[in-house]
Amino acid sequence: MEVGFLGLGIMGKAMAMNLLKHGFKVTVWNRTLSKCDELVEHGASVGETPAAVVKKCKYTIAMLSDPAAALSVVFDKDGVLEEVCAGKGYVDMSTVDAETSIKISEAIQSKGGHFLEAPVSGSKKPAEDGQLVILAAGEKALFEQAVPAFNVMGKKSFFLGPVGNGAKMKLVVNMIMGCMMNAFSEGLELASRSGLDPHTLLDVLDLGAIANPMFKLKGPTMINSNYAPAFPLKHQQKDMRLALALGDENALSMPIAAASNEAFKKARSLGLGDLDFSAVFEAVKLLKH
Amino acid sequence: MEVGFLGLGIMGKAMAMNLLKHGFKVTVWNRTLSKCDELVEHGASVGETPAAVVKKCKYTIAMLSDPAAALSVVFDKDGVLEEVCAGKGYVDMSTVDAETSIKISEAIQSKGGHFLEAPVSGSKKPAEDGQLVILAAGEKALFEQAVPAFNVMGKKSFFLGPVGNGAKMKLVVNMIMGCMMNAFSEGLELASRSGLDPHTLLDVLDLGAIANPMFKLKGPTMINSNYAPAFPLKHQQKDMRLALALGDENALSMPIAAASNEAFKKARSLGLGDLDFSAVFEAVKLLKH
Amino acid sequence: MEVGFLGLGIMGKAMAMNLLKHGFKVTVWNRTLSKCDELVEHGASVGETPAAVVKKCKYTIAMLSDPAAALSVVFDKDGVLEEVCAGKGYVDMSTVDAETSIKISEAIQSKGGHFLEAPVSGSKKPAEDGQLVILAAGEKALFEQAVPAFNVMGKKSFFLGPVGNGAKMKLVVNMIMGCMMNAFSEGLELASRSGLDPHTLLDVLDLGAIANPMFKLKGPTMINSNYAPAFPLKHQQKDMRLALALGDENALSMPIAAASNEAFKKARSLGLGDLDFSAVFEAVKLLKH
Amino acid sequence: MEVGFLGLGIMGKAMAMNLLKHGFKVTVWNRTLSKCDELVEHGASVGETPAAVVKKCKYTIAMLSDPAAALSVVFDKDGVLEEVCAGKGYVDMSTVDAETSIKISEAIQSKGGHFLEAPVSGSKKPAEDGQLVILAAGEKALFEQAVPAFNVMGKKSFFLGPVGNGAKMKLVVNMIMGCMMNAFSEGLELASRSGLDPHTLLDVLDLGAIANPMFKLKGPTMINSNYAPAFPLKHQQKDMRLALALGDENALSMPIAAASNEAFKKARSLGLGDLDFSAVFEAVKLLKH
Repeated sequence: MEVGFLGLGIMGKAMAMNLLKHGFKVTVWNRTLSKCDELVEHGASVGETPAAVVKKCKYTIAMLSDPAAALSVVFDKDGVLEEVCAGKGYVDMSTVDAETSIKISEAIQSKGGHFLEAPVSGSKKPAEDGQLVILAAGEKALFEQAVPAFNVMGKKSFFLGPVGNGAKMKLVVNMIMGCMMNAFSEGLELASRSGLDPHTLLDVLDLGAIANPMFKLKGPTMINSNYAPAFPLKHQQKDMRLALALGDENALSMPIAAASNEAFKKARSLGLGDLDFSAVFEAVKLLKH
Repeated sequence: MEVGFLGLGIMGKAMAMNLLKHGFKVTVWNRTLSKCDELVEHGASVGETPAAVVKKCKYTIAMLSDPAAALSVVFDKDGVLEEVCAGKGYVDMSTVDAETSIKISEAIQSKGGHFLEAPVSGSKKPAEDGQLVILAAGEKALFEQAVPAFNVMGKKSFFLGPVGNGAKMKLVVNMIMGCMMNAFSEGLELASRSGLDPHTLLDVLDLGAIANPMFKLKGPTMINSNYAPAFPLKHQQKDMRLALALGDENALSMPIAAASNEAFKKARSLGLGDLDFSAVFEAVKLLKH
Repeated sequence: MEVGFLGLGIMGKAMAMNLLKHGFKVTVWNRTLSKCDELVEHGASVGETPAAVVKKCKYTIAMLSDPAAALSVVFDKDGVLEEVCAGKGYVDMSTVDAETSIKISEAIQSKGGHFLEAPVSGSKKPAEDGQLVILAAGEKALFEQAVPAFNVMGKKSFFLGPVGNGAKMKLVVNMIMGCMMNAFSEGLELASRSGLDPHTLLDVLDLGAIANPMFKLKGPTMINSNYAPAFPLKHQQKDMRLALALGDENALSMPIAAASNEAFKKARSLGLGDLDFSAVFEAVKLLKH
Repeated sequence: MEVGFLGLGIMGKAMAMNLLKHGFKVTVWNRTLSKCDELVEHGASVGETPAAVVKKCKYTIAMLSDPAAALSVVFDKDGVLEEVCAGKGYVDMSTVDAETSIKISEAIQSKGGHFLEAPVSGSKKPAEDGQLVILAAGEKALFEQAVPAFNVMGKKSFFLGPVGNGAKMKLVVNMIMGCMMNAFSEGLELASRSGLDPHTLLDVLDLGAIANPMFKLKGPTMINSNYAPAFPLKHQQKDMRLALALGDENALSMPIAAASNEAFKKARSLGLGDLDFSAVFEAVKLLKH
């Protein structure tokens, strides 16, 4: 089957490559067209514009860098909207806010097209290994149509209901993650100041009921004050803020999330916003004798 | 080698049984002596008093239920102190506070004996399976002497330095765990109130970077409001309080631990102190339309 | 001088009356025109529409109930915009968000008019007594023109700089107030549960360095569980949320404000949102034996 | 009437002087006897030892610097205990913890004497002006006997019930004060970063419902980063810790107090513990561009 793919950044390129390797016919487009070359070598066709890709394919997947890019490929000249129509599907796998997602959804549907938001959990390595977790929401029929592609790009895909639920699920997960990073930072520093070796704490944690990949991965780099950004702190803090806003809409008191949000803000105030979110550890450690 | 073992509760019995199964000669004692019967069937000898056990063995392990019991077997009539002497070791694997541990340590050493505190991470099942994590601190030579026994009772043992460090390590781990339970509770309720299925949240969490045994184990029971106490909430809150006190001694600000502590206190105020620590979820959920 | 006055609710009526009593010529308008009668008895003229009032007066004051009403009198048919022009001033004393204020400001200025936002601190009684505190921001020349009217309506008026600063100052003050109400609630309950008489606590507080009118006024009603709404809890929580958002824009960590916000959200979750903001005391007190 | 007075530090000297000025016959004692000279000039007698003072007087007031000093004058050689007996009263106005107070109380009563704890609210200036607030607890009859002296040293005295309640009341008040100082700090910095003049914020606050002497006194010095210690930050943090412990005993969740405590701990970690408690403002302000 002919699948369209818009956006060949780090994530998109790895995802499209997996589709090709598993026998999908893929027509790709990227703002900088030269980025299509490697995929063409593996058998991809190239569309000149998003509209051209949509015209050719039953459904089209998009993986753009941010809400502005996600809106641009849909609404700009030669964009998705010009060719989407009854019977065609559009699957936006970019991470965008609910508002952007709903705006795109309404535009696609106003043309008779079908829409699915499908943000992913996982970064470069899982994308290359086809091990993403896909959080889809929108039209169920399009989800079922896309499942073969999802099975190739990810280890598991979920259908979560109406548009917006994919974004909400990501917020909930990232909120818990941000709280855990703060608790972990407090624990590492409490160990150090109490005369315990933080490396030993990592070993003990890894053998117990709260062992998890994040502690195992981030612990050693945090102890070495290495905060090369995999997930920038300012983005983590933005997700905490949005999760708290979601709680506020539902009158849900979330004191641990709120305290964690303030800790991330303190880290931003200390100039750490562009580092990895684990850099909140630096704000916890602050000490002057 | 002849090893003594004092205290045959749920944990102690499983641990002593593992020693017997792996070829150790074990002399046991328990306040209610009938509890020794099953171990005798597996080859254990019985000591009439703690003192008698210590007299007979190179070193003696204790696994008592609380600080009062831990003090009693050492200091009471016919207690450990009466027979401990140069060349003999005493390994207290009970979970006690640092103060109790230091008091016992000093008494043992004043008689020329050697002391090791060795609290464990893990409950009934890991005890039976020889999969405990052992957090030892005190005299290194005694640790090395006890390693063969530790290897049979646990999957890993750590030597953490001076007496008190075992208790401190447990506090750090339990502090992180308590924060995670709060974050998890907030996330579960945020999902529910936002129209997401909390069971799906569990599935998504289990596939990602923060997947951990506790979320997997406790999530389903929490969703069913089942709080049969594995680790009572009031004990979790006590450990949070002690961890915060440890931070206070070191001028360490721990806002996430502090917020979590207040959440557990709110749960106590709601009468949930004797339930499992996951019952803090009930305090998070409180809602009146 | 001829001053226009739009909006004769509880606050507006009291303020317009003070202008009349001090010799101002006032032309009033209210959506329900019958509300103008009492002011006419005291010498006011009536304008048929907001536009008519603006046409007649050098500058016009508005005191509307909410942002929707504030926008309506300006932008709707027969609204302020139709007659505002070079040389005319518009002073909006309603409590609105910065966005609304800026929208009105730009519209007025696009017609050549002058604009001042001037939210007030104080409620019915201070309005009647001419004891409001006026937080003005926008065009300085218009502020100076309005000072004689401000002097009659309030005990003190501030000029705070560009439009938006009046709203921001109110948020800062209300944020501090909300934190104090939470601290006060915790203190009252701590006294009670510790065996101290909360009335005595009020007496002690009133004699010390933190004595303030709010503790004196609200303390006795809180002890009696009387929460007749002077300032509804949901509005206080909204202001906390907006103050936190203002802090977020500036990377300012505000952990006490954040914890207070979550306490107000807990109170909302308990169904207390429409009561006085002091009802957060009920969320603090929650207890089940 | 003959009143004894032990301890002539900054506070004690001012208090004893007020007694003399209002016609009391006072016998004083101080560890460094030369400090008695100025009081002798105003008519005081001198006792050679605490025991000598107690022997001579119907009741004796103590105003010592800390718990160690308070215990010393009672229990050491030539101390209060040697002469206290049936019919004699001992009024300890020092600020000590409940445990110390109870220990002294029991010792005095075991000799047949009467005891009152009576910590004060207020520092040097109110002591000189006879404007202290006196928080007495213990034996009611002794309280009534001491009222004439209290009336001269303070503007108001309270009888709060059993020994320990004086200390508890101080903790509650100081807890609220510490929270307010944090909220105030967050508000000052929120104003500054939002482009508002913090001096204007002080003016606005001083005109409203939350106006209080502390904001008025500390605001200007905080803006000038002047933290000459009137009440050292580490003592404020200690009181927060003790207030939280009192709440913990009563299962009272106090999230605002807990967040404030962590803020004071952060300030200690930054080396500000010996400055005035208003120096928590520095921890709030931390910023790196």
